[in-house]
Amino acid sequence: MTATKKSKPTTAPSAPTAPARAKITTTGDREVRIERIFNAPRERVWDAMTKPELVAQWWGRGNKLVIERMELKRGGHWRFVEHSDHGVHGFEGRYREIKPMERISMTFEWDGMPGYPAVSTAAFEDLGDGRTKVISTMQFFTPEERDGMLQSGMEGGMNESYAALDALLARTN
Amino acid sequence: MTATKKSKPTTAPSAPTAPARAKITTTGDREVRIERIFNAPRERVWDAMTKPELVAQWWGRGNKLVIERMELKRGGHWRFVEHSDHGVHGFEGRYREIKPMERISMTFEWDGMPGYPAVSTAAFEDLGDGRTKVISTMQFFTPEERDGMLQSGMEGGMNESYAALDALLARTN
Repeated sequence: MTATKKSKPTTAPSAPTAPARAKITTTGDREVRIERIFNAPRERVWDAMTKPELVAQWWGRGNKLVIERMELKRGGHWRFVEHSDHGVHGFEGRYREIKPMERISMTFEWDGMPGYPAVSTAAFEDLGDGRTKVISTMQFFTPEERDGMLQSGMEGGMNESYAALDALLARTN
Repeated sequence: MTATKKSKPTTAPSAPTAPARAKITTTGDREVRIERIFNAPRERVWDAMTKPELVAQWWGRGNKLVIERMELKRGGHWRFVEHSDHGVHGFEGRYREIKPMERISMTFEWDGMPGYPAVSTAAFEDLGDGRTKVISTMQFFTPEERDGMLQSGMEGGMNESYAALDALLARTN
């Protein structure tokens, strides 16, 4: 989810049963789609993505993450600030839709490009075998914004976040 | 600028020299463009659109307007709340670019549709005869959001705001 930052080696250990890396595909001219399977039931993946004390343990990929706001309801605001060796990066947005266990949709904006929000939606699919597939889409205002995000190292940063989430799910199993 | 509300009769008197109503035209499939001439020099129109104590006098079309935030700089946030007989309507966003006397670009979101921002840009053109042309564009995420905004009475609400702005410019001449 920490999509706009450069890739760097993650400090979170990989879970031994970590699924394959998430693959980012482009759809249309200003969207991306990301599928990722997690080795945990849907309720635990949902909690890890919606409870602030859990989000703080993986979203920042091992960096300190301050959750300034996380009003998990339609119209609520969120704001996360990551403190890394390379500086302080703020991210924020507003929740468009929350459907527990099923779907979260929100705007996503990085302080480095203020006023350039994307719409980020995650859908949670119970695979029936104790695993959960998360299908994320991000829609940007323009093709240039989408391509700029991809070139900024989005895929690497996202996989680092997801590896840290794997580790969290493994240790809280 | 109060773009998402139903048209209602303005309580602000029309300036005797009020220019023609603003015309909204559509460009592409998810944008609108609005041109409007004001009978005042560019610096006074700029001030009326950027100084909170002046914005409060016209943006709400005669309704009470509370300016909760107006951090007029790149990355700053704004939030206006209009209190009318029909309820309380909040609007907010973040400034993308401020170029004094020339250009303001920001996101624009109505509390009634949270998480559905548009990008609003206003350019100020000195017509050389004491008048100023303001060219505004709004870009929406989708054609449906653009068309929904148009159908919500955007043109009427905007013309009420601009009529109130005419009146402000006339009385502070």
